[in-house]
Amino acid sequence: MRYSSFFAPTLRDDPADAEVVSHRLLVRAGYIRRVTSGVYDFLPLGLRVLRRIEQVIREEMDRSGAQELLMPMVQPAELWQQSGRWNKYGPELLRFRDRHDHESCLGPTHEEVICDLVAKELRSYKQLPMNLYQIQAKFRDEIRPRFGLMRGREFIMKDAYSFHVDRDCLMREYQNMFDTYVRIFSRLGLRFRAVEADTGSIGGESSHEFHVLADSGEDCIAHCEHCDYAANVEKARGRRELPDHQTAPLEEVHTPGLRSADEVADFLGMVPGLLVKTLVYRMVRDGTSSLVAACVRGDDQVQEVKLANVLGADELLLASDADIASIGGVAGFVGPQGLACRVVLDETLRDAAGLVVGANRLDHHLRGFEPGRDLSDASYADIREVKSGDGCPVCDGGLHLTRGIEVGHVFALGARYTEPMNVRFQTADGDRAIPLMGCYGIGVSRLMAAIVEQCHDENGLAWPMQVAPFQLVLISMGQDENVLKAADQMYERLIKAGISVLWDDRRERAGVKFKDADLIGFPLQLVIGARALAEGRVELGRRGEQRQSLSLNEAVERARRLVEACH
Amino acid sequence: MRYSSFFAPTLRDDPADAEVVSHRLLVRAGYIRRVTSGVYDFLPLGLRVLRRIEQVIREEMDRSGAQELLMPMVQPAELWQQSGRWNKYGPELLRFRDRHDHESCLGPTHEEVICDLVAKELRSYKQLPMNLYQIQAKFRDEIRPRFGLMRGREFIMKDAYSFHVDRDCLMREYQNMFDTYVRIFSRLGLRFRAVEADTGSIGGESSHEFHVLADSGEDCIAHCEHCDYAANVEKARGRRELPDHQTAPLEEVHTPGLRSADEVADFLGMVPGLLVKTLVYRMVRDGTSSLVAACVRGDDQVQEVKLANVLGADELLLASDADIASIGGVAGFVGPQGLACRVVLDETLRDAAGLVVGANRLDHHLRGFEPGRDLSDASYADIREVKSGDGCPVCDGGLHLTRGIEVGHVFALGARYTEPMNVRFQTADGDRAIPLMGCYGIGVSRLMAAIVEQCHDENGLAWPMQVAPFQLVLISMGQDENVLKAADQMYERLIKAGISVLWDDRRERAGVKFKDADLIGFPLQLVIGARALAEGRVELGRRGEQRQSLSLNEAVERARRLVEACH
Repeated sequence: MRYSSFFAPTLRDDPADAEVVSHRLLVRAGYIRRVTSGVYDFLPLGLRVLRRIEQVIREEMDRSGAQELLMPMVQPAELWQQSGRWNKYGPELLRFRDRHDHESCLGPTHEEVICDLVAKELRSYKQLPMNLYQIQAKFRDEIRPRFGLMRGREFIMKDAYSFHVDRDCLMREYQNMFDTYVRIFSRLGLRFRAVEADTGSIGGESSHEFHVLADSGEDCIAHCEHCDYAANVEKARGRRELPDHQTAPLEEVHTPGLRSADEVADFLGMVPGLLVKTLVYRMVRDGTSSLVAACVRGDDQVQEVKLANVLGADELLLASDADIASIGGVAGFVGPQGLACRVVLDETLRDAAGLVVGANRLDHHLRGFEPGRDLSDASYADIREVKSGDGCPVCDGGLHLTRGIEVGHVFALGARYTEPMNVRFQTADGDRAIPLMGCYGIGVSRLMAAIVEQCHDENGLAWPMQVAPFQLVLISMGQDENVLKAADQMYERLIKAGISVLWDDRRERAGVKFKDADLIGFPLQLVIGARALAEGRVELGRRGEQRQSLSLNEAVERARRLVEACH
Repeated sequence: MRYSSFFAPTLRDDPADAEVVSHRLLVRAGYIRRVTSGVYDFLPLGLRVLRRIEQVIREEMDRSGAQELLMPMVQPAELWQQSGRWNKYGPELLRFRDRHDHESCLGPTHEEVICDLVAKELRSYKQLPMNLYQIQAKFRDEIRPRFGLMRGREFIMKDAYSFHVDRDCLMREYQNMFDTYVRIFSRLGLRFRAVEADTGSIGGESSHEFHVLADSGEDCIAHCEHCDYAANVEKARGRRELPDHQTAPLEEVHTPGLRSADEVADFLGMVPGLLVKTLVYRMVRDGTSSLVAACVRGDDQVQEVKLANVLGADELLLASDADIASIGGVAGFVGPQGLACRVVLDETLRDAAGLVVGANRLDHHLRGFEPGRDLSDASYADIREVKSGDGCPVCDGGLHLTRGIEVGHVFALGARYTEPMNVRFQTADGDRAIPLMGCYGIGVSRLMAAIVEQCHDENGLAWPMQVAPFQLVLISMGQDENVLKAADQMYERLIKAGISVLWDDRRERAGVKFKDADLIGFPLQLVIGARALAEGRVELGRRGEQRQSLSLNEAVERARRLVEACH
């Protein structure tokens, strides 16, 4: 491809709305353009990268034994009603009515469609296991699309769905997909981590997320410095001891105007770890709303995803002051004792004593609180958010928090969808049984952004060879006839050597060409100028490194080797 | 791929809702499954064919100099409002509101999005010409989706858009795309015709449709038996002489209860060609509704697309009896004389005399009607539908009508979109100018159905080698160990020879395997059975032809040559 006729509009300045590097650079370097909120065009450069990423994913999925198909973006409401998600999914599911007034939606994921398909075709255990995948545009109506491709509304996803006769078979495929994902992200040259994850709205039993490590990541992940343990903070467990404490009688103390844990601890001369924060939530479960109180240490935070899972809540919101009053609490001085609602205490508070809690009376707290003694009806669960420095739940090491971009997710769903979608098969014994299911997603367009977050410098993009839109940029300097002729021949030779090449044949100054080459981020740069050419030399180098003077033959050979080294 | 683990569910019976061969066979042979009205899953077999068709299209588009990008399916209403199509497009444009109440639509085509993109990036004439294309899912909310992939709602399309400094440049690219389409459809092994076409709701100046010839086609196309002339009947012109006639005085005749042209002609002892049918339509243009009368010969039909184009109508419907009465007509006895509305007569009636028309009075007609004499204010235009036997408008030959499936369409749009979408560029002289535009579509998934319409027999599909999901099916007979071992080796050898192979390793009877092989439609069948294998022989043949006994080496070599012959 010649740059002079290639549609790759680069910008001198950063786009105004770009908050993260990948968004900024992908727009500036001519890879993507915004169409509307969270919706982008992939320009030729962007599509080339997307296709290379897809190709790596496709090769590894095929190697794993999965089979590619293609499902539609538009899905009928009936299927979502059958699975029970039509009302549960929330406003990210874009619902609409077609011209015949049939309710439909844009697929944010395809569990329902694949189950409907498999339900109609599956007869015997002999057809199992089966893993079907697609690479396709999806739509999620995010409330606040941002960061370019990182959190778009229309995006490209690889989604796979497997079906199994039993749990062993499912877990084998789960491991197979886990390994496949490791191969995919490794081939893409990424620093990443697989972490234990919450199963969220997809539902199911166990799941892992794959995170590309990057400071701009929206997710926080905890990992052990010593062992393999890693988990999303929405799920991560950490060991933490309560500060020294001892049993004491329960007594009410006057704490005028002191609402925060730190203020009260200070006032009472205690460490914040022995205070208890009590938060009241309004939760919705199966359409019914109720109040619930959650208690954690004063120096901890409630991890609301964990709490929602414990409660089986579809929705969880902080309660209003009026809500709090309705169960006998006083905002700012809420405590677990005497509240007319369910109370959940964090595991760290089990067997604790000598705690301070709100007294449910204005300007008062209780001292000497001991849940096991003072609460008749309380339950304990892991509802705190882990912190750096917590003990690892698996080994003796300590947890460390980093930020990550979630680019992949594997779920062992069990019968969550196959049961309501009426997927059945005949077992070897002739019985009818429900197959177990797994699902496995990769955010393909988000992956493109995640790669950029790891692979860039102050001059622009620095694509790994495997996904670069072109592996080499051929820069001809000036309009000297010998240079153009040599460049033309070099271009043909490089193509023949199996290298993808963009020839920058534009009538631009050398400075502009070098700047664009660095910005767009071709891994290799080959420069042909009149003076060196007169001596039979050209210059070849990796982006960002010193170029070497080589003969034309050497240059082709060196380029070929550098490209092949990455396969 | 081994059939035993391949998801290709074939059916014994035809699907109940399938009216055409392609729909019937693609479902039965396991290529597609219906999700909801006009929306399909492409199973692994179907996706493989789709991808091969796409690949041919992509190669030829790239060769033509076009560049691939990818635009979104979800589009903001603002762009369609700017082009003026938001209100004009009709209910096939699926409109919806997102969670922020922004109006959006699912893209049925992408003129607006591409113009918006190019408007922001185009500066100079030096960037032109430019042709950008994509292959992507589209959605049109058809009122009556039918015939499987032939008229679906969600479908795959290749759409290309070109931009030019002037008309010459546009027409060169139009020809370039025309030639590219001829190459594409030729490579796909299709019998097709390029025909002059109506420009329809896309708008613009000139256009050609590419039709695959098939009796099941929804379109009717007229072509000359002698010259190259071919056109969609919505556009086709035919020469036709009026029967002998002579001037006569205008007189009213009593024609009690006779409404049809044939009845009246019979009653008056005339040929139907001298009677005039007058149809009254209600038309909508720019939001205003009005009535209009159209006159054609009694043995002709009004071609409503032609009429709508003459009138510039956005919508055209037959008027009600009340409508007819409101302009002084009497249903069943309508004539052009004295109607209080615009009257358009077909060109064939210009200079005619001695005609019979309705008298706008119950049970009466007028005899001796002569438009030039008896109508003060009438216009003439070509509004009749051509018939087999009409004279060719270009040469002395005659027109012949056949049915076709529209699979491609090229348009020279001019400034229809670039003007309202504010696409501008700086000319060599430094002026600001509007680029001219062309657009070029291919219905990729419809093409898959069209190929089937041409390539099948009573036993199933008969794919051309270029698009077959697998080029060869390897059938191992029984579970004999030697057979399985030989099949395994043969499978590897064939793959190595560059042939795509499905190995039917199922524990099925030979009859089932042969039936499925014919149904699915692999171009080549290679059979390994115990008896022949003992003598070192296997059987190879094209689908539907006699298989030949060959040595293993010969079979690989023959298969390789048969596959390569099609590249």
